[in-house]
Amino acid sequence: MNNDNELLVDKDFKIETAEIITVGTEILLGQVLNSNAQYLARKLSNLGINCYFQQSVGDNEIRLIETLKLALSRADLVIITGGLGPTADDISLEVASKLTNNKLVISESELEKLNYYLESNGIIDIDNKNLNYKQVYVPEESIILPNDKGTAPGVIMKNKNADLAAGANNLIMLLPGPPKENTFMFENYAEKFIKEHSEYDIENVYLRAFGLSESVAFLALEDISTKQNPSVATYVFPDELVIRVSYKHKRTSDLQELYDTVKIVESRLGNYIFSKDSYNLVETVFNKLMENKQTIAFAESCTAGLASSKIADISGASEVLLGGMVTYNNDIKVRMLGIPESLIAEHGAVSNEAALAMSTNAKLRFNSDFGIAITGNAGPNPSEGKEVGLVYIAISSRHKDIVEEFKFTGDRQKIRNKACQSAYYLLLKSFLED
Amino acid sequence: MNNDNELLVDKDFKIETAEIITVGTEILLGQVLNSNAQYLARKLSNLGINCYFQQSVGDNEIRLIETLKLALSRADLVIITGGLGPTADDISLEVASKLTNNKLVISESELEKLNYYLESNGIIDIDNKNLNYKQVYVPEESIILPNDKGTAPGVIMKNKNADLAAGANNLIMLLPGPPKENTFMFENYAEKFIKEHSEYDIENVYLRAFGLSESVAFLALEDISTKQNPSVATYVFPDELVIRVSYKHKRTSDLQELYDTVKIVESRLGNYIFSKDSYNLVETVFNKLMENKQTIAFAESCTAGLASSKIADISGASEVLLGGMVTYNNDIKVRMLGIPESLIAEHGAVSNEAALAMSTNAKLRFNSDFGIAITGNAGPNPSEGKEVGLVYIAISSRHKDIVEEFKFTGDRQKIRNKACQSAYYLLLKSFLED
Repeated sequence: MNNDNELLVDKDFKIETAEIITVGTEILLGQVLNSNAQYLARKLSNLGINCYFQQSVGDNEIRLIETLKLALSRADLVIITGGLGPTADDISLEVASKLTNNKLVISESELEKLNYYLESNGIIDIDNKNLNYKQVYVPEESIILPNDKGTAPGVIMKNKNADLAAGANNLIMLLPGPPKENTFMFENYAEKFIKEHSEYDIENVYLRAFGLSESVAFLALEDISTKQNPSVATYVFPDELVIRVSYKHKRTSDLQELYDTVKIVESRLGNYIFSKDSYNLVETVFNKLMENKQTIAFAESCTAGLASSKIADISGASEVLLGGMVTYNNDIKVRMLGIPESLIAEHGAVSNEAALAMSTNAKLRFNSDFGIAITGNAGPNPSEGKEVGLVYIAISSRHKDIVEEFKFTGDRQKIRNKACQSAYYLLLKSFLED
Repeated sequence: MNNDNELLVDKDFKIETAEIITVGTEILLGQVLNSNAQYLARKLSNLGINCYFQQSVGDNEIRLIETLKLALSRADLVIITGGLGPTADDISLEVASKLTNNKLVISESELEKLNYYLESNGIIDIDNKNLNYKQVYVPEESIILPNDKGTAPGVIMKNKNADLAAGANNLIMLLPGPPKENTFMFENYAEKFIKEHSEYDIENVYLRAFGLSESVAFLALEDISTKQNPSVATYVFPDELVIRVSYKHKRTSDLQELYDTVKIVESRLGNYIFSKDSYNLVETVFNKLMENKQTIAFAESCTAGLASSKIADISGASEVLLGGMVTYNNDIKVRMLGIPESLIAEHGAVSNEAALAMSTNAKLRFNSDFGIAITGNAGPNPSEGKEVGLVYIAISSRHKDIVEEFKFTGDRQKIRNKACQSAYYLLLKSFLED
């Protein structure tokens, strides 16, 4: 076996089609979600490889052979995930090697690695009886994909059984089943190999938008969405809408067409787009606060600490987050945050006036640059005459105060989450206007 | 067509094996996670039906036929999900009907439903040109599964093409692709049909545990975990460990064996198990507080409002949650919560002493029955000489104060979440000890 691609596969061999086989009885029983299939499918699609089928099968020799035969009859590259582990029901490599006339031999380097692993874990095993020893056997002619997150290595080998695919010399890649191992191995070792043997590349730009509905985005981008390349697609996430502009191109060509399409999207939906990089909304706000050396404090009613908690997920949050007050109860708003009883009596706790008083007092009491207040009715029933989903959000800065009324839909969790995200978006806007 | 099972399928016809085909180019491109396959696999497994294969295929006639032929050659029931919609690339029903010699005819009841739907949505369509009209065609002899969450009905029909499955008369079930429609239709219409034509039933008991590692559970249950029936399996979730005791039985038999196994689990791990019903940990605490008519208030440092926010997700939280204080900054702990500066100087903000002062002051200032305090270092770096993951949680009630030290592992998000869950668990324990 060797680690040199050229010895195994002719340089001119191109992978046009691939098929994913996920192996594991736990998939057939529905005990786990088949996230490997989605991950690999997306990766392959991004590499410009066509996938027409996916198959799942249990840890069973006869059925795995049936599945693999079928895949080898119709794809240039068959990726098998799962069944590489040390136990008796991990049979993927043995079955695939036998079927494709590949002989398993001991890999000296994998043996060395395993011995080191066992030793450093204090496992003494003179007779090599440890189940893991099974994993040092690899096909004689193959490329080994190191497993940096586990013990079972991955393998790329040729199909040498001419009866199966009419001498097409297609390839089998075996990857481990645990998603962490699978993802790491693909990203660090397998992807490079596939790239070297495929003609196309896909470049994506992700534009992250807030407060934009899918239907509005659809209408704004209808004309460019029907184009095949660059393609424009929108994805709805709980906290944002992502517009992906995707460009399939030969590796040598330039990306002008991609950038032109991105510009069109920005010109039409620019005021919703908060990020063209990998930062989400809260991270974008955090970066801005760090840049400006500014601090924030919260006064939260219906969100009950969810808003302050979100920014605390970011490492270094203590530089910008001073604290917050959860005033779930009206009496607490008066007693702990100093909201005048008369104000609540006149306007209600869910009002422009209450939100502004909360943000002002949060800013003053915590002595922060910004006070952020959220008060509303998260449901499920109208309360104090205020409808479900009605939320007021106020931002007080050193210079000015802003307040906005929102009407959110959905269950409690959705309303509370939308309120928090809107508060961060409002904060971001208030920087831009400052 | 009709809605009477007996007319379509002989009463004695038993479904022993099933195969799931998920149809949709978006699956092959990795744009969506194939959650329908997992859902249906788990459901079928719980109904005692064997599934040996799953297949995914795009919206393509030739490839769908290839996939369906293969499935019909080896399963009593083939479930196809996706491709039932109104657009041109929704071809599942047409392709499956043609292949299995089923003739499509207009369903008067579906036509009526669709007309009503269009009318009530203000769509006037004299020529029946609306794309949705495609969906009123169903196989002449079939069972219609109503779609209460969308417009495309589901269908159960017989395979009448003897060339395909040697006269086995197997069945095809078509379900819509959107997970909400799929799940609702299966649960409310399809499951009943399958139950009537399968011999077994599976009864599950779920025991929810907190603070229990998978390896401890494994060792405690090793002997009963190797049994086939009732089977015992553990599932790790971010917030809890669930032990499932599952019993496959003929519908007439009693469940004594199941209850005996549940008792064994309880006798061995009882002090970790907080619920045998559908309530999670926070809901269990909420129910207890409601029952006792008691109130709570939080003082949070590293969790920054996440703990108070969790109980506010439950409708009716205002009955028990008064409020909370997020004291992310030491100066805020002193100024806003009245923690003595000298205490922090002597013991640090991450200490037994600070946690106790925080829970006591939260209880007193909010005038609640319980004060709950969380202070710790969520990482990524040691701070004030306290290691990452070190968290102190204190509960002050009217009668007593308790405080516990925890060492959590994981990233910031994990440490903060574990701290919140541990706080709720500690609160639950303090009721039981009260």
